[in-house]
Amino acid sequence: MSATYPLFSEHKEETIAAWGEVQLLGYIREWLGDATPPAPHGMGDDTAVLPDDAGNVITTDSLVFGRHFTTALPPELAGEKLLKRNLSDIAAMGAKPTVAVLAGFFPANLRQDWLQRFTEGLGRCAVEWGTRIVGGDLAQINAGWSANLTLLGHAARPVLRTGAGIGDWIFVTGQLGGSIVSWHARFTPRLKEGQWLAQQPEIVSMIDLTDGIAKDLPALMTPDQQALVNRSDLPLRLEAKEQEAGGSGKHAWQHALTDGEDYELLFTWRGDATELRERWPFTGTDLTCIGRIEERPSPDAPLLLDPMDELPLLKASGYEHFR
Amino acid sequence: MSATYPLFSEHKEETIAAWGEVQLLGYIREWLGDATPPAPHGMGDDTAVLPDDAGNVITTDSLVFGRHFTTALPPELAGEKLLKRNLSDIAAMGAKPTVAVLAGFFPANLRQDWLQRFTEGLGRCAVEWGTRIVGGDLAQINAGWSANLTLLGHAARPVLRTGAGIGDWIFVTGQLGGSIVSWHARFTPRLKEGQWLAQQPEIVSMIDLTDGIAKDLPALMTPDQQALVNRSDLPLRLEAKEQEAGGSGKHAWQHALTDGEDYELLFTWRGDATELRERWPFTGTDLTCIGRIEERPSPDAPLLLDPMDELPLLKASGYEHFR
Repeated sequence: MSATYPLFSEHKEETIAAWGEVQLLGYIREWLGDATPPAPHGMGDDTAVLPDDAGNVITTDSLVFGRHFTTALPPELAGEKLLKRNLSDIAAMGAKPTVAVLAGFFPANLRQDWLQRFTEGLGRCAVEWGTRIVGGDLAQINAGWSANLTLLGHAARPVLRTGAGIGDWIFVTGQLGGSIVSWHARFTPRLKEGQWLAQQPEIVSMIDLTDGIAKDLPALMTPDQQALVNRSDLPLRLEAKEQEAGGSGKHAWQHALTDGEDYELLFTWRGDATELRERWPFTGTDLTCIGRIEERPSPDAPLLLDPMDELPLLKASGYEHFR
Repeated sequence: MSATYPLFSEHKEETIAAWGEVQLLGYIREWLGDATPPAPHGMGDDTAVLPDDAGNVITTDSLVFGRHFTTALPPELAGEKLLKRNLSDIAAMGAKPTVAVLAGFFPANLRQDWLQRFTEGLGRCAVEWGTRIVGGDLAQINAGWSANLTLLGHAARPVLRTGAGIGDWIFVTGQLGGSIVSWHARFTPRLKEGQWLAQQPEIVSMIDLTDGIAKDLPALMTPDQQALVNRSDLPLRLEAKEQEAGGSGKHAWQHALTDGEDYELLFTWRGDATELRERWPFTGTDLTCIGRIEERPSPDAPLLLDPMDELPLLKASGYEHFR
């Protein structure tokens, strides 16, 4: 009898379900070994910076039916969302998008009209944001629907996640929380804002908010840093307040800290916070200073702390979902 | 009641199953509209040439469990195959691979040990061929297993599919047919051969054989051209002969023409065919002249013809699978 190599198991302890996302990504980097260089030229930032050091960057992001959208979403918006997820990563580097390739995983029973509207939405969004779809691949799957897009970009000076220092002000664009109601598929990628920020000498580190501040802010920090965040300063999306009022069991500020898919820019600023607010040229995009990076008093001190009442907003162990 | 937008249909005439692959790709390009430029800067070649005209190229290819491999394949070889499918596209441009990004679509019940061996195989293969995995994305799906890899490369002079002319000799590397038995996952991407060919002034057009000569050779030709191919000259893989002997119902030469996944280079050569054979430096890789491009006598003349007995090897309408 020939050997077989089963992919799946009913025993959770043998499967990737036993791991959190961060742990799984850590193992994958370990298994890739020498094949993956350290960030910013490898995994670990919003995009990777290509080794030619000409400021070219690359990112890849996927869209899965049932996970990132449902049949309630018009297909054009699913097409836009696939591209905009990637555009948001490019924005967080302060880069401009250039070209993309598309990979589809479609079953034979996919509706022609749905695919047409999806593809037209993707195409219009690409033209709107000045990028082109230059290649692709179609693979047939038995059931479900997934697609992936890989996007290249160019930045005169890519802004990395790393580098936040003691005394940096923490800023966020737009509003936070309750994205699931509508914003997750209707957001505006902050490309113009990211490109403008990359030109300011005071910008230090930047990320786009996909998992919420509670997970994404620590990605900017080192273990000896603590973020002091006034929860009353968090810019709340109307839907975050509505969810609190509707009995979600969370305060609106908790939605703002932990809800995913805000696709806003979170960055640290080494300079005069008031001056940034005066210089900010985007009248249609909110800009809020939510706190400051300070020294962490001890290794078990909370990563995020509200200085008004000393309430830990995030425990020392950090925050992880998707388990 | 809110509107819903169903993705799937039980009525075949409403689904993409009603279309062939070529038709589906044609619609997708049409729907993308201005978002996709013509080849070589857009879809339609083995890779797309980036618009900076610095010789950078990009390609994307996927691997689906149950379609491109089964549980009979050691996971390391699945990892290698995902990368090598892309390397073969890069080879067909005469390019060198540079960096790649990986997208995984994994269910929660994916075995840790399978994923480890897959990833280690991919990593070792990347190091072997001088490329690096610089970024990635993981998406959770309910069932099945898919992955995509997007690979960048660089070519001093990218060799396109288009350009074959009357009188060009048709050459193929390696052997053809019966790939499904083993070769499909154990092939050597013809990178060195492709890069060497790109440096020869006589090379005109090139493609990597993924769907078989019957589909891939017409991709090099214009409608006013006919390929004269001696079927007795086709280099047959041992497994193609074994399949004929085992009662596959096809001649070995038919396997060589229509089996997929040969991953050999097919190219046209405007010069002395004997001289190419003398110059060819790869003693471990077969090189075979299988025929010549001629004028097509009429629009309904066969695209591929055996000149010895005038047997049409491919009808005027061409060949299409995946319907």
